[in-house]
Amino acid sequence: MAGSTFGHLLRVTNFGESHGPAIGCVIDGCPPGLALAVEDLQPDLDRRKPGTSRHVTQRRESDRVEILSGVFEGRTTGTPIALLIRNEDQRSSDYENLLDTFRPGHADYTYWRKYGARDPRGGGRSSARLTAPMVAAGAVAKKWLRERYGTRVRGCLQQLGEIEIAFVAWEHAERNPFFAPNEAIVPRLEDYMDALRRQGDSCGARLRVTATDVPVGLGAPLYDKLDADIAYAMMGINAVKGVEIGAGFGAVAQKGSEHGDELTPDGFLSNHAGGVLGGISTGQDIEVSIAIKPTSSIRLPRRSIDRNNRPVTVETHGRHDPCVGIRATPIAEAMLALVLMDHALLQRAQNGDVELPVPPIAARAPKDA
Amino acid sequence: MAGSTFGHLLRVTNFGESHGPAIGCVIDGCPPGLALAVEDLQPDLDRRKPGTSRHVTQRRESDRVEILSGVFEGRTTGTPIALLIRNEDQRSSDYENLLDTFRPGHADYTYWRKYGARDPRGGGRSSARLTAPMVAAGAVAKKWLRERYGTRVRGCLQQLGEIEIAFVAWEHAERNPFFAPNEAIVPRLEDYMDALRRQGDSCGARLRVTATDVPVGLGAPLYDKLDADIAYAMMGINAVKGVEIGAGFGAVAQKGSEHGDELTPDGFLSNHAGGVLGGISTGQDIEVSIAIKPTSSIRLPRRSIDRNNRPVTVETHGRHDPCVGIRATPIAEAMLALVLMDHALLQRAQNGDVELPVPPIAARAPKDA
Amino acid sequence: MAGSTFGHLLRVTNFGESHGPAIGCVIDGCPPGLALAVEDLQPDLDRRKPGTSRHVTQRRESDRVEILSGVFEGRTTGTPIALLIRNEDQRSSDYENLLDTFRPGHADYTYWRKYGARDPRGGGRSSARLTAPMVAAGAVAKKWLRERYGTRVRGCLQQLGEIEIAFVAWEHAERNPFFAPNEAIVPRLEDYMDALRRQGDSCGARLRVTATDVPVGLGAPLYDKLDADIAYAMMGINAVKGVEIGAGFGAVAQKGSEHGDELTPDGFLSNHAGGVLGGISTGQDIEVSIAIKPTSSIRLPRRSIDRNNRPVTVETHGRHDPCVGIRATPIAEAMLALVLMDHALLQRAQNGDVELPVPPIAARAPKDA
Amino acid sequence: MAGSTFGHLLRVTNFGESHGPAIGCVIDGCPPGLALAVEDLQPDLDRRKPGTSRHVTQRRESDRVEILSGVFEGRTTGTPIALLIRNEDQRSSDYENLLDTFRPGHADYTYWRKYGARDPRGGGRSSARLTAPMVAAGAVAKKWLRERYGTRVRGCLQQLGEIEIAFVAWEHAERNPFFAPNEAIVPRLEDYMDALRRQGDSCGARLRVTATDVPVGLGAPLYDKLDADIAYAMMGINAVKGVEIGAGFGAVAQKGSEHGDELTPDGFLSNHAGGVLGGISTGQDIEVSIAIKPTSSIRLPRRSIDRNNRPVTVETHGRHDPCVGIRATPIAEAMLALVLMDHALLQRAQNGDVELPVPPIAARAPKDA
Repeated sequence: MAGSTFGHLLRVTNFGESHGPAIGCVIDGCPPGLALAVEDLQPDLDRRKPGTSRHVTQRRESDRVEILSGVFEGRTTGTPIALLIRNEDQRSSDYENLLDTFRPGHADYTYWRKYGARDPRGGGRSSARLTAPMVAAGAVAKKWLRERYGTRVRGCLQQLGEIEIAFVAWEHAERNPFFAPNEAIVPRLEDYMDALRRQGDSCGARLRVTATDVPVGLGAPLYDKLDADIAYAMMGINAVKGVEIGAGFGAVAQKGSEHGDELTPDGFLSNHAGGVLGGISTGQDIEVSIAIKPTSSIRLPRRSIDRNNRPVTVETHGRHDPCVGIRATPIAEAMLALVLMDHALLQRAQNGDVELPVPPIAARAPKDA
Repeated sequence: MAGSTFGHLLRVTNFGESHGPAIGCVIDGCPPGLALAVEDLQPDLDRRKPGTSRHVTQRRESDRVEILSGVFEGRTTGTPIALLIRNEDQRSSDYENLLDTFRPGHADYTYWRKYGARDPRGGGRSSARLTAPMVAAGAVAKKWLRERYGTRVRGCLQQLGEIEIAFVAWEHAERNPFFAPNEAIVPRLEDYMDALRRQGDSCGARLRVTATDVPVGLGAPLYDKLDADIAYAMMGINAVKGVEIGAGFGAVAQKGSEHGDELTPDGFLSNHAGGVLGGISTGQDIEVSIAIKPTSSIRLPRRSIDRNNRPVTVETHGRHDPCVGIRATPIAEAMLALVLMDHALLQRAQNGDVELPVPPIAARAPKDA
Repeated sequence: MAGSTFGHLLRVTNFGESHGPAIGCVIDGCPPGLALAVEDLQPDLDRRKPGTSRHVTQRRESDRVEILSGVFEGRTTGTPIALLIRNEDQRSSDYENLLDTFRPGHADYTYWRKYGARDPRGGGRSSARLTAPMVAAGAVAKKWLRERYGTRVRGCLQQLGEIEIAFVAWEHAERNPFFAPNEAIVPRLEDYMDALRRQGDSCGARLRVTATDVPVGLGAPLYDKLDADIAYAMMGINAVKGVEIGAGFGAVAQKGSEHGDELTPDGFLSNHAGGVLGGISTGQDIEVSIAIKPTSSIRLPRRSIDRNNRPVTVETHGRHDPCVGIRATPIAEAMLALVLMDHALLQRAQNGDVELPVPPIAARAPKDA
Repeated sequence: MAGSTFGHLLRVTNFGESHGPAIGCVIDGCPPGLALAVEDLQPDLDRRKPGTSRHVTQRRESDRVEILSGVFEGRTTGTPIALLIRNEDQRSSDYENLLDTFRPGHADYTYWRKYGARDPRGGGRSSARLTAPMVAAGAVAKKWLRERYGTRVRGCLQQLGEIEIAFVAWEHAERNPFFAPNEAIVPRLEDYMDALRRQGDSCGARLRVTATDVPVGLGAPLYDKLDADIAYAMMGINAVKGVEIGAGFGAVAQKGSEHGDELTPDGFLSNHAGGVLGGISTGQDIEVSIAIKPTSSIRLPRRSIDRNNRPVTVETHGRHDPCVGIRATPIAEAMLALVLMDHALLQRAQNGDVELPVPPIAARAPKDA
């Protein structure tokens, strides 16, 4: 199956290259009747777009999205929603020297070996620019989940390079270009990034993404477990090298008596599961953590080869994010929202007639539980 | 899409419950002409099966597999290969008390809320027993990959509870029931497990899975990246809470000048990528690490609720693995093999005509590089 | 995608060969809570099974089905339902001479060229025997549709060779081995078949399949139109060469003023559409007609080639249906039921929240309309 | 699964509405290296486009396609090819009266009941205008098939209303706006259509589509038989009510000794199979015939209802094709080409290693055979 479509029932097909005429996506399977306008998509696109601070690429893209189909008189019709974003600021000359050489840590080499050719301009299809349509699609999913179930999806930066960031409050994350949930640490992050840029190097990041007020029962026993689909979605974001749900790798050293979240009539007493048990949502917050590798396009000289397997030295100048993780928060939120909406549709398809005599317990027990 | 089918072109449909008449799978899409007999499947099934040491569940299952279709005169025909394993040692009485209550950390609760009913015998569909058909299917993939490309998939235990296990040699992993690549540490692991059983508690584990001699070019730019599909496969294994490719979460604190693997005419100089760049295999070893949570069925008393949301205390006796991670190595190997074979078929479908003038570089540079 | 799985949300994976150990299927995606036992499946299997009259193959198969999974305490659990039918009466010696030669009109040649090998025993995978699991799966869909929506799926023979069969009543179809909805014509059909057998020849058939009390709104604009999926399902039945919905090929010579079914507050005034408009069900009866070719395994000598492209003469003795169309009625019913149930699940996934102020109009207007 | 994506490995996702900003599609899975430019797509789009004769709708659309992605330096890159066609001549006022009423024989009613809302402008999503992106995608498949295998896909009109059209030569079909393979009959077709327009009525059509030089071995035993996928593709074209492969409904009255195509070392002696046996291509010409119903939008008054189930009389003025079958030839060709290319990719995925000692026999035996 060609790989550019995401999802089972809510399906998003992504297209485009960094320096081609346009990028975009087609969202198929959205229920009808959802109020939808460009204004619903643009805020998340603006959170992701380049050029918003000196710590990200200086490429200037307005990332204005056009809705080509699937909306009539301000509401979704149930037919495919096509979204188009024109590329505006292509400086392909930056990449001319890249056509023949491969950046270490970059997809240059693998595209070349796979397809026998590649579009080298701005990374072509491998560019993080292709996450813009994901973010736009995710905004549709976020809106539907919020209206239908009250679900809210949020993300923030947990670590930038060596700097761990203690969580203070979600509100903080929206008030600085790092999505750091801790405003006090922002000057330190800025200094860190400024030094990195001067060195011509790059760094990694760790992000947290959370969904609250998630319905219980989303997912499947196997293989399309909710957490398996989340792992697929997250690992599919550019530069991601690790995914954790709930306690994640911390679960290795936990005892069963510590890890297993106890249940009470008033709610769960902990959330090491990260909101998923046996592949199915518990109703607790979905808690996801992802690792993002450092950008491979750096100024520092590195050993590589050209298309004839001859040794070369590569220094990448152009315009690049010194830490792609900085702009990745809205992307991870979008992918989580898409997975949840998809599984919400799957759940009512198969289990729409299920009725139980007692309601689900609360996501969290009251403090005195 | 109903979730019980895995893969794009090589598709494995899993069925069965822990204490039902049988478990099994249907493998669709296997190329014809592969020599295949029960003897090819049984060794990996035996590596996974219960009762092989005192550290795993004492359920006695021979796990003998029957090939129902798809093989004629000892070779695959290209039609679906159905595999059947009869359940033999069901002691459903062990589970009677579980019908009405939910084990903390277990899928009992989520199945109940999702389906309005569940088969409680031995965990029903959520049992780790359902990994046996995955292992059988994986054995087919391993054989095909080995014959077609020389690819070899292996796994081992990296950490058991708090005990980290230094890697010594692959051969060690096949000579102890923990799959520890370090025989010297086995007595310590045994003591640890014995103590845990006495306490009535359980622990987690961390595993490594590796594929060597992987063709370059497997995968896709997005969304069906090779690493995304690996993450989906691994997170879909029972009890897995985290997945890393290559440097994984370690990439967060790496600089780009450290993480990006340099290329030389003689091969790559490192493998922080874990064999995947931009979603496509580099030809280097695929390196995966997974976190497995502690078993939720433990003897220690825990707070929970019953089906009427009334508080109860749960103690689970029955027969359970105190660490499901111990038997998980062949499962993780199987899932990695299935992903690789699936992508090998996808690759020749789309790119079967691609020819390049120069060969891929080696997975590893010679020592003096 | 490997082709042995049918359906979008309700997915049926078929496996087996005519003379292998067993045939069967895995039904994934069935809602939980449906009362289900072997007794629900066996009647349709018995309607399809061989040896029920002298006009069909004399192979003796009890076609007893075993439910391996997905049912607990008499009700579906929502997990995969695996169905197994052991093959009993294999006379593979009948086919020994076929291993090397290709029957004209048979899949022998195409399997050989596609896979480079084939299981020749009883037609292997291409045998009409593989429709037994379809029939069993269809029985599940029929039951669910009947209980959930009152939908009823029925089929009958419309034409046998040159003999057209005027429709009298559905009840007739269940009282003769031809599924002829007209008992008076049965002696003529018997004479026709007896003559055909004496000649060593075979004939084709035309069937009608109908679903009543179908919910309005099933299907999609494109490409997964309800009628497109029905056409796929019907053409996928062995030996089918043509599919019509509603007026079918008769629509070619109709005027728009004749074909378009008028609507009144009391119901539709005709049903040339066959229950589908724009790919979506109207609530009227789904009306399908299919053409089945004559059996290719006949006693009369025919020119052919062997595996070395050398000319041979082929006469097929063995045990064969002289008209596969005779036993095809339950198969066509099953496939229609599977498509409808699948689309009913899809419909509530996407449009489960749609509410309209006025009810659908009736399938048929009262006579005086 | 949301229905707007067609194909298994070569996947085409269609979007748009008749009077929205644009229509288009995303083609995913095309092999890299295919020379591709707008000039390759435009000829088929021009064959399909409206306004080319007085016998089709007078809407004026240039149907200029823009390639948004997937092509670099004139060749496909292996990444998604997005195609965009802007709508130009929307006269939505024509449809204002349709918002509240349902045309008999039209999807108006079913969309309304399915989605609870619809875009009524020009039929919205149900418009035959949405076949333009199918034609563009089909042009890519035609080109690839032609270059890779020499395969050629062609179609023509076989019947217009009551007028049957004897086949003379393929060249004729390209020289008249009816795609009639018989120029002598064109004046009669013109008179017929002129009369129909004067009456305010519409008529149906029957088309033939053929592929020559098709590789042997495309397809699968079940369910994704080549003919099943062709039936799905054809029945998915707007207004199609019947599909035949090879002898089609004519096979019903054939004897087995007549229908089964004999094989000789020099080739097949007939082609009643229409190029498919057991779901797999024989190497002979694929022969398909489809029935297209008369247009439902006609001037003659018809009984219907409004959205409140109240009786109304509907007369449709606007601009409509009095026979949608006239422009359907390039559409049917496109769909057949897409199915064939998809199955060619599937075939080499699974069976790319199959080698046979003797070549396939010819599609047709020489005359003296």
